Amino acid sequence: MGDIKVIEIKKSVYADNDERADLLRRELKEKGIFLMNLMSSPGSGKTSTLKQIIAAMKDKYQIGIMEADIDSDVDAVAIAETGVKAIQLHTGGMCHLDADMTRQGLEALEVDGIELAILENVGNLVCPAEFDTGAAKNVMILSVPEGHDKPLKYPLMFSICDVVLINKIDVIEHFDFDLQQCRQNILMRNKDAVIIPISAKTGEGIEEFTEWLSQEIENMR
Amino acid sequence: MGDIKVIEIKKSVYADNDERADLLRRELKEKGIFLMNLMSSPGSGKTSTLKQIIAAMKDKYQIGIMEADIDSDVDAVAIAETGVKAIQLHTGGMCHLDADMTRQGLEALEVDGIELAILENVGNLVCPAEFDTGAAKNVMILSVPEGHDKPLKYPLMFSICDVVLINKIDVIEHFDFDLQQCRQNILMRNKDAVIIPISAKTGEGIEEFTEWLSQEIENMR
Repeated sequence: MGDIKVIEIKKSVYADNDERADLLRRELKEKGIFLMNLMSSPGSGKTSTLKQIIAAMKDKYQIGIMEADIDSDVDAVAIAETGVKAIQLHTGGMCHLDADMTRQGLEALEVDGIELAILENVGNLVCPAEFDTGAAKNVMILSVPEGHDKPLKYPLMFSICDVVLINKIDVIEHFDFDLQQCRQNILMRNKDAVIIPISAKTGEGIEEFTEWLSQEIENMR
Repeated sequence: MGDIKVIEIKKSVYADNDERADLLRRELKEKGIFLMNLMSSPGSGKTSTLKQIIAAMKDKYQIGIMEADIDSDVDAVAIAETGVKAIQLHTGGMCHLDADMTRQGLEALEVDGIELAILENVGNLVCPAEFDTGAAKNVMILSVPEGHDKPLKYPLMFSICDVVLINKIDVIEHFDFDLQQCRQNILMRNKDAVIIPISAKTGEGIEEFTEWLSQEIENMR
């Protein structure tokens, strides 16, 4: 897979990230590009969930994916195998992307013609929550093996996400994970959160999510 | 559990973290206090692994535990139930602890008389790796559900840890996790890493780790 484009993202020099995020959001809306920011802990299943979303939506929308990591290109290679446009962003050790770094990624993706752009943020429940990327919607994944107490410990991440996908629901019987308690913990942080249990392995719950996402894309138009 | 001490950690004002970490390390060595820094992603099993370590070592050493989180005190409550000294550190949203923040925690723990102090760092594979806490040894947990590719994506964390515990080995059959490939990925980042598969649930591998830890404590004396 020698054709994966790898972009070394430069650190932002701007202090006014919120304003720059609002500007990017307006520009993307004018161009008809829906940007979704996908966040989670390391290993929660962002890339395998993305592969399911792409399979369900690629005949309906032109999709472009930005995979952000500190190092490696394994995720962008996995996404490129689905046939959609995918690039790898390297953050040079940085723990999150802000609006300007996201703009660098969108320019490298050559986003014109893309209807749905998805940023897979760095695997981290803390720092990415602090920086508005300019996305239309924030989506996060909490996986069953991580435990239902995570909303108690990482309040900001759960409070800024529009959707929480509870992944690896297929292995719930092997873990002490209380789905009802998890829902309560999420809603305590964010009473409007859409909560969808999914399995990126079996495909469970993916349709419910892609219906939500399609509706949001249509709403933006 | 109204008796859990919760400390609001203040942000450090010092730029020379490496020097301050070396100073703290020397001071702790003079006092005969072995400080271990335990790091991982959110939900890898730091607290449940600590409970196993405490059960195996509390008759031999005076143990004190610092639980760092952005919010909640669920981990310190769980540790206090083991009977050892435990305090909760709140980081005020910060994604890591540095040497000065660790010093604040040690002072709050009232560390004199403690032989083994363990800092459970914020769940994060990125930022804690960048800040020397002053610990004698760094230990990290990678759990099976996170996947064997994590050393490719989070190089610094794996390169600065003396030990990598591969937790949740009891559920390996339910995940696409290649233990041999994981070892290779870890050793590529850190050829001297001690790698121990464990299960905080069944206790598998805990004895191998506590033997290593006891030896390191004796070596420091």
